[in-house]
Amino acid sequence: MKSTKKFMLPESEMPKQWYNILADMPVKPKPLLNPATNEPLLPVEMEAIFAKELTIQEFSGKRWHDIPDQVQELYKMYRPSPLVRAYALEKELDTPARIFFKNESVSPVGSHKLNTAIPQAYYNKLQGIKHLTTETGAGQWGTAMSLACKHFGLDLTVFMVKQSYLAKPYRKVVMGIYGAQVHASPSKKTAYGREVLAKDPECGGSLGMAISEAIEMAVTGKETRYVLGSVLNHVILHQTVIGLEAEKQMEMAGFFPDKVIACFGGGSNFSGISFPFLRHKLKGEKQLEFIAAEPEACPKLTRGEFRYDFGDTAHLTPLIPMYTLGNEFSPEQIHAAGLRYHGGGQLVSQLKQDGFITSTAISQKESFKAGVLFAAAEGIVPAPESNHAIAAVIREAIKARESGKAETILFNLSGHGHLDLGAYSEMA
Amino acid sequence: MKSTKKFMLPESEMPKQWYNILADMPVKPKPLLNPATNEPLLPVEMEAIFAKELTIQEFSGKRWHDIPDQVQELYKMYRPSPLVRAYALEKELDTPARIFFKNESVSPVGSHKLNTAIPQAYYNKLQGIKHLTTETGAGQWGTAMSLACKHFGLDLTVFMVKQSYLAKPYRKVVMGIYGAQVHASPSKKTAYGREVLAKDPECGGSLGMAISEAIEMAVTGKETRYVLGSVLNHVILHQTVIGLEAEKQMEMAGFFPDKVIACFGGGSNFSGISFPFLRHKLKGEKQLEFIAAEPEACPKLTRGEFRYDFGDTAHLTPLIPMYTLGNEFSPEQIHAAGLRYHGGGQLVSQLKQDGFITSTAISQKESFKAGVLFAAAEGIVPAPESNHAIAAVIREAIKARESGKAETILFNLSGHGHLDLGAYSEMA
Repeated sequence: MKSTKKFMLPESEMPKQWYNILADMPVKPKPLLNPATNEPLLPVEMEAIFAKELTIQEFSGKRWHDIPDQVQELYKMYRPSPLVRAYALEKELDTPARIFFKNESVSPVGSHKLNTAIPQAYYNKLQGIKHLTTETGAGQWGTAMSLACKHFGLDLTVFMVKQSYLAKPYRKVVMGIYGAQVHASPSKKTAYGREVLAKDPECGGSLGMAISEAIEMAVTGKETRYVLGSVLNHVILHQTVIGLEAEKQMEMAGFFPDKVIACFGGGSNFSGISFPFLRHKLKGEKQLEFIAAEPEACPKLTRGEFRYDFGDTAHLTPLIPMYTLGNEFSPEQIHAAGLRYHGGGQLVSQLKQDGFITSTAISQKESFKAGVLFAAAEGIVPAPESNHAIAAVIREAIKARESGKAETILFNLSGHGHLDLGAYSEMA
Repeated sequence: MKSTKKFMLPESEMPKQWYNILADMPVKPKPLLNPATNEPLLPVEMEAIFAKELTIQEFSGKRWHDIPDQVQELYKMYRPSPLVRAYALEKELDTPARIFFKNESVSPVGSHKLNTAIPQAYYNKLQGIKHLTTETGAGQWGTAMSLACKHFGLDLTVFMVKQSYLAKPYRKVVMGIYGAQVHASPSKKTAYGREVLAKDPECGGSLGMAISEAIEMAVTGKETRYVLGSVLNHVILHQTVIGLEAEKQMEMAGFFPDKVIACFGGGSNFSGISFPFLRHKLKGEKQLEFIAAEPEACPKLTRGEFRYDFGDTAHLTPLIPMYTLGNEFSPEQIHAAGLRYHGGGQLVSQLKQDGFITSTAISQKESFKAGVLFAAAEGIVPAPESNHAIAAVIREAIKARESGKAETILFNLSGHGHLDLGAYSEMA
């Protein structure tokens, strides 16, 4: 039996800079628009909502951004994360494909979200902010932000989509352990939440609504800013630490990927693992494919329109040029709550539009079947979100078996499913 | 802010042998007795229950045992585990003590139990056994054994203490994903289970009863053997991989522990981290303390008697010379179900008797308070069992603050608490 093999990067080899793909994109995305004026948004207009340094990163065209020393130190809690050759999965699938995964589930919060939560808390702290607000769907982002805020001594208020709040009670236990205030959204804490509840007291909420509440509290509060866990350029910038590590680890393993696969919600884990590899494709140095694995319930890249849309339901955000199902789109209840966002974000959408990446839609049933197969082979029970990536990998591995092609597939295991076993039980 | 610092051992430095403390004990423990004859048990008498190689290890006086290549390969799924300097916890406690922990929660099953599950499945497979039986309390051991059996293509039947089976439904979901058959014990699957249920249909079970059922099925089944997750010498032998790694990592960190602390159920995680360090004390090379952290609800080392007792309730096991609360002892329901075993095992009990180790009893309330403090500082939510170790560490760290002594404390984080968040919620 050939067991799993992991490639560990020494801490000294950890990336010292994040990679900004905007610098290498042949077609730059259209600007964000101020919805009041329909004019391109200025960085200064975002500073009421976001920490100044994050705003700078959001608009930056600079290729490399230094990772602050203190952020690097905190990354060492759990980074570098392992790159694993999934021999057992390959054997199970009887495929000539070489399957590697980057294991982001090893972070103390169980997902890749901490990669951006730490710098976001750091830059806010540096600026003298005392209180942060955010939203969370599945709870992964809220958990990560809670721990990051605990480290920097910041207060955090989390608006958690009510359906998830009720379905995943343990997520709020963890956020509570880390000291965050968690409210089910829509809540009575904001004018927008009260307005929604007045119309529909039973409203189960959505990520768009929770974002609206969190932004409202940020702009109306003292020494308060808002933080977002996906979609935006600065978030994606931070997540490139995944792919930059993976690039070195694939070199240790002696292979370069032919296909890079990740699940796709707001784009942060997909972009995080993909963009450092994609830069070689943009420069024409390498040929490889990028596949975003979406849920059938919310396939914005696969079936959405490419146009300007709001990032939230109350229309408090700028207009973003992106693939979207519409900001009012309400996807059915799937266990992968982290993939229920309506839009694809500026960078990924433009890259999709220009043919550099593709997407595929996976049914919930197929995703869980894939997750169980992976868990039995590799031991790790994946998050429902990550199961979409695994399902896409399995499709490619089976194609490779049929064609006899020994290609190399790399995917991102964005998180573990220890808090989602109820979902596994239901789907069994 | 000084962040957490982890010390990673390269895979090439992983231990190639397990350490058997029996070789270095000044007073050898009294023999196991065959209860039918009251004569010392012979290895051959255990072979109907356990794989032959495990029986050899159980009685071995040899200091070092080679770790088979295939076991070493499978260890690399998650080993070497990190050694972490808990700067954030030190800061939170305002202590001059240096606190290190060995993070065994990184295994795919979330605890140290896989360290012995892998070799136990391996030796049984080697012998041509097809089916294994075991018991589990909290579910950590059953989960580990399920994954190990999946890897080696062995069938596994797990008897899970009924109270845990009902209180921790997600554990059986994971065991099911790994392909094990799980029964609530007492069950109708065995004569002993049926006998118990006839007397008390509502019986919630105990670890002793579950062991009795698993052994009965092993000795009556074809090509079937039994495996145990703690207490016995061969189990402890396998777990020394923890302490042997930690020894090298403490050297990397530049410190030698003054105190080694672990929670104590059947002794496997305590012995695993302690014995490699204890050998230096037995040889007179080093002075250091070893503290077993027990729950107040089941304090066998702290308040039990040192005498011969059975390992199970139906009296199917040999008589073991050990600290015991009596094989009929039924501890109150605590969340740390893995610490509810009545006996201390042969090796640890003798070492306690001879003054080489000490123990302390921790209330459930103190244990959870410690766990929450640790989680908020270091990010990892610990298993309820591990919380006992953390509580004992905090006591020592506070003593160090009071005395101003910059001592070095090492403890074993035996597992994470991702499947115990309901318990955290109740204890909040």
